[in-house]
Amino acid sequence: MDKEIPAQTLKVEVLTREAFEPFGDVLEIRDNPLVINQGRCQKYSDLTSVTTDDQGYATMHIYKTARIRQAYQLDLLERHPLGSQTFMPLAEQRFLVVVASGSSDAEKPDLSSIRCFLTNGKQGITYHPGVWHHPLLSIDSGEEYLVVDRKGPGDNCDEVLIPLEQHLIVEVPK
Amino acid sequence: MDKEIPAQTLKVEVLTREAFEPFGDVLEIRDNPLVINQGRCQKYSDLTSVTTDDQGYATMHIYKTARIRQAYQLDLLERHPLGSQTFMPLAEQRFLVVVASGSSDAEKPDLSSIRCFLTNGKQGITYHPGVWHHPLLSIDSGEEYLVVDRKGPGDNCDEVLIPLEQHLIVEVPK
Repeated sequence: MDKEIPAQTLKVEVLTREAFEPFGDVLEIRDNPLVINQGRCQKYSDLTSVTTDDQGYATMHIYKTARIRQAYQLDLLERHPLGSQTFMPLAEQRFLVVVASGSSDAEKPDLSSIRCFLTNGKQGITYHPGVWHHPLLSIDSGEEYLVVDRKGPGDNCDEVLIPLEQHLIVEVPK
Repeated sequence: MDKEIPAQTLKVEVLTREAFEPFGDVLEIRDNPLVINQGRCQKYSDLTSVTTDDQGYATMHIYKTARIRQAYQLDLLERHPLGSQTFMPLAEQRFLVVVASGSSDAEKPDLSSIRCFLTNGKQGITYHPGVWHHPLLSIDSGEEYLVVDRKGPGDNCDEVLIPLEQHLIVEVPK
Protein backbone atom coordinates (compact mmCIF):
# COMPACT_ATOMS: atom_id res chain seq x y z
CA MET A 1 0.00 0.00 0.00
CA ASP A 2 2.78 2.46 0.74
CA LYS A 3 3.90 2.36 -2.89
CA GLU A 4 0.64 3.81 -4.13
CA ILE A 5 0.23 7.46 -5.00
CA PRO A 6 -1.86 8.90 -2.18
CA ALA A 7 -5.39 9.82 -3.13
CA GLN A 8 -5.78 13.45 -4.09
CA THR A 9 -9.14 15.01 -3.33
CA LEU A 10 -9.82 17.87 -5.70
CA LYS A 11 -10.69 21.23 -4.22
CA VAL A 12 -14.25 22.19 -5.16
CA GLU A 13 -14.47 25.78 -6.39
CA VAL A 14 -17.56 27.95 -6.69
CA LEU A 15 -18.49 28.35 -10.34
CA THR A 16 -18.32 31.96 -11.49
CA ARG A 17 -18.05 33.45 -14.93
CA GLU A 18 -14.65 34.90 -14.12
CA ALA A 19 -13.17 31.66 -12.80
CA PHE A 20 -14.57 29.60 -15.69
CA GLU A 21 -13.58 32.03 -18.44
CA PRO A 22 -10.52 30.01 -19.64
CA PHE A 23 -12.75 26.99 -20.23
CA GLY A 24 -16.05 28.40 -21.44
CA ASP A 25 -19.19 30.29 -20.47
CA VAL A 26 -21.59 30.19 -17.54
CA LEU A 27 -25.29 30.42 -18.39
CA GLU A 28 -27.15 32.25 -15.65
CA ILE A 29 -29.41 35.22 -15.11
CA ARG A 30 -27.51 38.49 -14.84
CA ASP A 31 -28.37 42.11 -14.33
CA ASN A 32 -30.07 44.39 -16.82
CA PRO A 33 -32.27 42.20 -18.98
CA LEU A 34 -33.82 43.47 -22.17
CA VAL A 35 -37.57 43.82 -21.86
CA ILE A 36 -39.39 42.43 -24.90
CA ASN A 37 -42.83 41.25 -25.98
CA GLN A 38 -44.62 44.40 -24.79
CA GLY A 39 -43.17 44.21 -21.32
CA ARG A 40 -44.14 40.60 -20.75
CA CYS A 41 -40.66 39.06 -21.02
CA GLN A 42 -37.21 39.73 -19.60
CA LYS A 43 -34.48 38.55 -21.96
CA TYR A 44 -31.03 37.77 -20.59
CA SER A 45 -29.21 37.93 -23.88
CA ASP A 46 -26.29 36.16 -25.46
CA LEU A 47 -25.17 34.15 -22.46
CA THR A 48 -23.19 31.86 -24.74
CA SER A 49 -22.84 31.08 -28.41
CA VAL A 50 -22.72 27.80 -30.27
CA THR A 51 -19.48 27.12 -32.12
CA THR A 52 -19.06 24.57 -34.89
CA ASP A 53 -16.67 24.13 -37.78
CA ASP A 54 -17.89 24.81 -41.33
CA GLN A 55 -18.77 21.17 -41.93
CA GLY A 56 -20.90 20.80 -38.84
CA TYR A 57 -24.11 22.18 -37.41
CA ALA A 58 -25.60 22.42 -33.95
CA THR A 59 -28.02 19.86 -32.60
CA MET A 60 -29.70 19.28 -29.24
CA HIS A 61 -30.10 16.30 -26.95
CA ILE A 62 -31.46 15.49 -23.52
CA TYR A 63 -28.97 13.73 -21.25
CA LYS A 64 -30.15 11.81 -18.20
CA THR A 65 -27.16 11.09 -15.99
CA ALA A 66 -26.69 8.86 -12.98
CA ARG A 67 -25.76 10.97 -10.02
CA ILE A 68 -22.80 10.32 -7.76
CA ARG A 69 -23.64 9.77 -4.12
CA GLN A 70 -20.24 9.39 -2.56
CA ALA A 71 -16.57 10.05 -3.29
CA TYR A 72 -15.95 9.41 -6.98
CA GLN A 73 -12.67 8.56 -8.66
CA LEU A 74 -12.18 10.41 -11.95
CA ASP A 75 -11.42 7.99 -14.75
CA LEU A 76 -11.72 9.83 -18.05
CA LEU A 77 -11.29 13.18 -19.74
CA GLU A 78 -12.66 14.05 -23.14
CA ARG A 79 -12.76 16.99 -25.52
CA HIS A 80 -14.66 18.01 -28.63
CA PRO A 81 -12.24 19.78 -30.97
CA LEU A 82 -14.78 20.75 -33.65
CA GLY A 83 -17.41 22.48 -31.59
CA SER A 84 -18.66 23.85 -28.31
CA GLN A 85 -20.84 21.84 -25.92
CA THR A 86 -23.47 23.33 -23.62
CA PHE A 87 -25.16 21.69 -20.62
CA MET A 88 -28.23 23.31 -19.11
CA PRO A 89 -30.01 21.64 -16.17
CA LEU A 90 -33.75 21.11 -16.67
CA ALA A 91 -34.56 21.48 -12.99
CA GLU A 92 -32.85 23.26 -10.14
CA GLN A 93 -30.01 20.79 -9.70
CA ARG A 94 -26.32 21.19 -8.94
CA PHE A 95 -23.56 19.42 -10.76
CA LEU A 96 -19.77 19.25 -10.78
CA VAL A 97 -17.77 20.59 -13.70
CA VAL A 98 -14.30 19.04 -13.99
CA VAL A 99 -11.95 20.61 -16.54
CA ALA A 100 -8.24 20.54 -17.37
CA SER A 101 -5.85 22.65 -19.35
CA GLY A 102 -4.04 21.53 -22.45
CA SER A 103 -3.74 23.50 -25.64
CA SER A 104 -5.87 22.41 -28.55
CA ASP A 105 -2.68 21.13 -30.18
CA ALA A 106 -1.69 18.95 -27.27
CA GLU A 107 -2.80 15.34 -27.55
CA LYS A 108 -3.30 14.94 -23.84
CA PRO A 109 -4.57 17.08 -21.00
CA ASP A 110 -2.29 18.25 -18.23
CA LEU A 111 -3.58 16.14 -15.35
CA SER A 112 -1.92 18.41 -12.80
CA SER A 113 -4.17 21.25 -14.03
CA ILE A 114 -7.49 19.58 -13.27
CA ARG A 115 -10.04 21.84 -11.55
CA CYS A 116 -13.49 21.09 -10.18
CA PHE A 117 -16.32 23.66 -10.07
CA LEU A 118 -19.68 23.37 -8.30
CA THR A 119 -22.73 24.97 -9.91
CA ASN A 120 -25.40 26.70 -7.84
CA GLY A 121 -28.33 24.70 -9.20
CA LYS A 122 -29.51 27.28 -11.72
CA GLN A 123 -26.30 27.59 -13.74
CA GLY A 124 -25.48 25.89 -17.01
CA ILE A 125 -22.12 25.82 -18.74
CA THR A 126 -20.57 25.80 -22.20
CA TYR A 127 -17.21 24.17 -22.90
CA HIS A 128 -15.29 25.97 -25.62
CA PRO A 129 -14.12 23.71 -28.46
CA GLY A 130 -11.19 21.54 -27.42
CA VAL A 131 -11.54 22.02 -23.65
CA TRP A 132 -10.75 18.83 -21.75
CA HIS A 133 -13.51 17.84 -19.33
CA HIS A 134 -14.80 14.89 -17.36
CA PRO A 135 -18.27 13.62 -18.21
CA LEU A 136 -20.79 15.63 -16.24
CA LEU A 137 -21.25 14.64 -12.60
CA SER A 138 -24.77 15.10 -11.27
CA ILE A 139 -25.07 15.36 -7.53
CA ASP A 140 -28.68 16.38 -6.90
CA SER A 141 -31.87 14.65 -7.91
CA GLY A 142 -33.20 15.87 -11.23
CA GLU A 143 -30.61 14.49 -13.58
CA GLU A 144 -31.80 15.83 -16.92
CA TYR A 145 -29.88 18.32 -19.02
CA LEU A 146 -30.40 19.99 -22.36
CA VAL A 147 -27.18 19.52 -24.33
CA VAL A 148 -26.30 21.58 -27.39
CA ASP A 149 -23.34 20.49 -29.44
CA ARG A 150 -21.91 19.94 -32.89
CA LYS A 151 -22.89 17.24 -35.34
CA GLY A 152 -21.22 16.52 -38.65
CA PRO A 153 -18.41 14.65 -40.38
CA GLY A 154 -15.08 13.95 -38.69
CA ASP A 155 -14.04 12.82 -35.25
CA ASN A 156 -15.26 15.27 -32.63
CA CYS A 157 -14.43 13.32 -29.47
CA ASP A 158 -10.97 12.64 -28.07
CA GLU A 159 -10.84 10.55 -24.90
CA VAL A 160 -8.01 10.01 -22.46
CA LEU A 161 -8.25 7.56 -19.60
CA ILE A 162 -6.96 8.78 -16.26
CA PRO A 163 -4.71 6.10 -14.75
CA LEU A 164 -6.52 4.66 -11.75
CA GLU A 165 -3.33 4.84 -9.70
CA GLN A 166 -3.58 8.61 -9.97
CA HIS A 167 -6.39 8.39 -7.39
CA LEU A 168 -8.03 11.64 -8.37
CA ILE A 169 -11.08 11.89 -6.16
CA VAL A 170 -14.03 14.28 -6.02
CA GLU A 171 -16.18 14.30 -2.93
CA VAL A 172 -19.88 15.08 -3.14
CA PRO A 173 -20.49 18.52 -1.62
CA LYS A 174 -23.28 18.86 0.92
CA MET B 1 -71.91 45.71 -29.62
CA ASP B 2 -73.74 43.62 -32.20
CA LYS B 3 -71.40 44.88 -34.92
CA GLU B 4 -68.37 43.32 -33.30
CA ILE B 5 -66.91 40.03 -34.43
CA PRO B 6 -67.80 37.53 -31.71
CA ALA B 7 -64.88 36.38 -29.60
CA GLN B 8 -63.33 33.18 -30.83
CA THR B 9 -61.76 30.94 -28.20
CA LEU B 10 -59.03 28.84 -29.71
CA LYS B 11 -59.18 25.10 -29.25
CA VAL B 12 -56.25 23.91 -27.15
CA GLU B 13 -54.56 20.86 -28.67
CA VAL B 14 -52.21 18.41 -26.98
CA LEU B 15 -48.67 18.98 -28.22
CA THR B 16 -47.29 15.95 -30.02
CA ARG B 17 -44.43 15.59 -32.46
CA GLU B 18 -46.80 14.53 -35.20
CA ALA B 19 -49.21 17.43 -34.74
CA PHE B 20 -46.42 20.00 -34.50
CA GLU B 21 -44.39 18.68 -37.43
CA PRO B 22 -45.48 21.41 -39.91
CA PHE B 23 -44.20 24.08 -37.52
CA GLY B 24 -41.10 22.60 -35.92
CA ASP B 25 -39.82 20.04 -33.44
CA VAL B 26 -40.81 18.87 -29.97
CA LEU B 27 -37.97 18.33 -27.49
CA GLU B 28 -38.83 15.50 -25.14
CA ILE B 29 -37.51 12.17 -23.93
CA ARG B 30 -38.29 9.33 -26.28
CA ASP B 31 -37.65 5.62 -26.43
CA ASN B 32 -34.31 3.95 -26.99
CA PRO B 33 -31.65 6.30 -25.68
CA LEU B 34 -28.00 5.80 -26.44
CA VAL B 35 -26.04 4.79 -23.37
CA ILE B 36 -22.77 6.73 -23.05
CA ASN B 37 -20.13 7.61 -20.49
CA GLN B 38 -19.55 4.03 -19.38
CA GLY B 39 -23.20 3.40 -18.71
CA ARG B 40 -23.69 6.47 -16.55
CA CYS B 41 -25.70 8.55 -19.04
CA GLN B 42 -28.72 8.04 -21.28
CA LYS B 43 -28.56 10.27 -24.35
CA TYR B 44 -31.77 11.15 -26.19
CA SER B 45 -30.12 12.26 -29.41
CA ASP B 46 -30.80 14.86 -32.03
CA LEU B 47 -34.18 16.05 -30.79
CA THR B 48 -33.84 19.17 -32.87
CA SER B 49 -31.20 21.07 -34.81
CA VAL B 50 -30.30 24.73 -34.89
CA THR B 51 -30.77 26.42 -38.24
CA THR B 52 -29.19 29.71 -39.26
CA ASP B 53 -28.30 31.36 -42.53
CA ASP B 54 -24.63 31.58 -43.59
CA GLN B 55 -24.22 35.05 -42.10
CA GLY B 56 -25.53 34.15 -38.68
CA TYR B 57 -24.64 31.92 -35.78
CA ALA B 58 -26.53 30.43 -32.87
CA THR B 59 -26.63 32.07 -29.47
CA MET B 60 -28.47 31.34 -26.22
CA HIS B 61 -30.55 33.40 -23.84
CA ILE B 62 -32.67 32.92 -20.75
CA TYR B 63 -36.20 34.32 -21.05
CA LYS B 64 -38.28 35.03 -17.97
CA THR B 65 -41.87 35.51 -19.02
CA ALA B 66 -44.92 36.82 -17.21
CA ARG B 67 -47.51 34.10 -17.04
CA ILE B 68 -51.12 34.50 -18.07
CA ARG B 69 -53.66 33.79 -15.38
CA GLN B 70 -56.93 34.25 -17.21
CA ALA B 71 -58.32 34.42 -20.72
CA TYR B 72 -55.83 36.22 -22.93
CA GLN B 73 -56.46 38.04 -26.16
CA LEU B 74 -53.82 37.36 -28.81
CA ASP B 75 -52.38 40.58 -30.15
CA LEU B 76 -49.26 39.77 -32.15
CA LEU B 77 -47.62 37.18 -34.35
CA GLU B 78 -43.95 37.15 -35.26
CA ARG B 79 -41.52 35.06 -37.26
CA HIS B 80 -37.76 34.72 -37.65
CA PRO B 81 -36.98 34.14 -41.32
CA LEU B 82 -33.23 33.61 -40.95
CA GLY B 83 -33.09 30.97 -38.25
CA SER B 84 -34.81 28.50 -35.98
CA GLN B 85 -35.81 29.35 -32.40
CA THR B 86 -35.92 26.83 -29.55
CA PHE B 87 -37.62 27.23 -26.15
CA MET B 88 -36.82 24.76 -23.39
CA PRO B 89 -38.44 25.18 -19.95
CA LEU B 90 -35.98 25.25 -17.05
CA ALA B 91 -38.42 23.68 -14.62
CA GLU B 92 -41.43 21.43 -15.05
CA GLN B 93 -43.79 24.06 -16.39
CA ARG B 94 -46.45 24.05 -19.07
CA PHE B 95 -46.84 26.70 -21.72
CA LEU B 96 -49.02 27.46 -24.71
CA VAL B 97 -47.60 27.39 -28.23
CA VAL B 98 -49.58 29.48 -30.71
CA VAL B 99 -48.64 29.13 -34.37
CA ALA B 100 -50.11 30.03 -37.76
CA SER B 101 -49.55 29.02 -41.35
CA GLY B 102 -48.29 31.28 -44.07
CA SER B 103 -45.62 30.44 -46.57
CA SER B 104 -42.20 31.95 -46.01
CA ASP B 105 -42.92 34.19 -49.04
CA ALA B 106 -46.16 35.54 -47.68
CA GLU B 107 -45.86 38.83 -45.84
CA LYS B 108 -48.62 38.01 -43.40
CA PRO B 109 -49.84 34.94 -41.58
CA ASP B 110 -53.18 33.38 -42.33
CA LEU B 111 -55.10 34.31 -39.17
CA SER B 112 -57.73 31.67 -39.87
CA SER B 113 -55.02 29.01 -39.53
CA ILE B 114 -53.99 29.83 -35.96
CA ARG B 115 -53.57 26.79 -33.72
CA CYS B 116 -52.80 26.55 -30.02
CA PHE B 117 -50.86 23.65 -28.43
CA LEU B 118 -50.42 22.87 -24.74
CA THR B 119 -47.11 21.35 -23.59
CA ASN B 120 -47.00 18.69 -20.89
CA GLY B 121 -44.53 20.50 -18.64
CA LYS B 122 -41.43 18.63 -19.74
CA GLN B 123 -41.58 19.45 -23.45
CA GLY B 124 -39.69 22.16 -25.29
CA ILE B 125 -40.23 23.27 -28.87
CA THR B 126 -38.33 24.56 -31.89
CA TYR B 127 -39.95 26.82 -34.46
CA HIS B 128 -38.58 26.23 -37.93
CA PRO B 129 -37.31 29.38 -39.68
CA GLY B 130 -40.16 31.58 -40.85
CA VAL B 131 -42.92 29.97 -38.78
CA TRP B 132 -45.41 32.53 -37.49
CA HIS B 133 -45.94 32.32 -33.73
CA HIS B 134 -47.25 34.31 -30.81
CA PRO B 135 -44.78 35.21 -28.07
CA LEU B 136 -44.61 32.32 -25.64
CA LEU B 137 -47.44 32.12 -23.10
CA SER B 138 -46.42 30.73 -19.72
CA ILE B 139 -49.23 29.33 -17.64
CA ASP B 140 -47.49 27.61 -14.70
CA SER B 141 -45.13 29.04 -12.14
CA GLY B 142 -41.50 28.67 -13.13
CA GLU B 143 -41.31 31.06 -16.03
CA GLU B 144 -37.72 30.61 -17.18
CA TYR B 145 -36.73 29.17 -20.54
CA LEU B 146 -33.49 28.51 -22.33
CA VAL B 147 -33.82 30.05 -25.79
CA VAL B 148 -31.54 29.15 -28.69
CA ASP B 149 -31.75 31.26 -31.80
CA ARG B 150 -29.87 33.03 -34.56
CA LYS B 151 -27.78 36.14 -34.24
CA GLY B 152 -26.18 38.05 -37.07
CA PRO B 153 -26.70 40.78 -39.66
CA GLY B 154 -30.07 41.47 -41.27
CA ASP B 155 -33.62 41.68 -40.01
CA ASN B 156 -34.64 38.39 -38.41
CA CYS B 157 -37.96 39.42 -36.86
CA ASP B 158 -41.17 40.21 -38.73
CA GLU B 159 -44.12 41.26 -36.59
CA VAL B 160 -47.79 41.50 -37.45
CA LEU B 161 -50.35 42.92 -35.06
CA ILE B 162 -53.59 40.98 -34.74
CA PRO B 163 -56.50 43.43 -35.00
CA LEU B 164 -58.12 43.62 -31.57
CA GLU B 165 -61.56 43.35 -33.13
CA GLN B 166 -60.61 39.82 -34.19
CA HIS B 167 -61.12 38.83 -30.53
CA LEU B 168 -58.87 35.80 -30.69
CA ILE B 169 -58.85 34.41 -27.17
CA VAL B 170 -56.93 31.66 -25.43
CA GLU B 171 -58.16 30.39 -22.11
CA VAL B 172 -55.79 29.12 -19.47
CA PRO B 173 -56.09 25.33 -19.21
CA LYS B 174 -56.52 23.82 -15.77
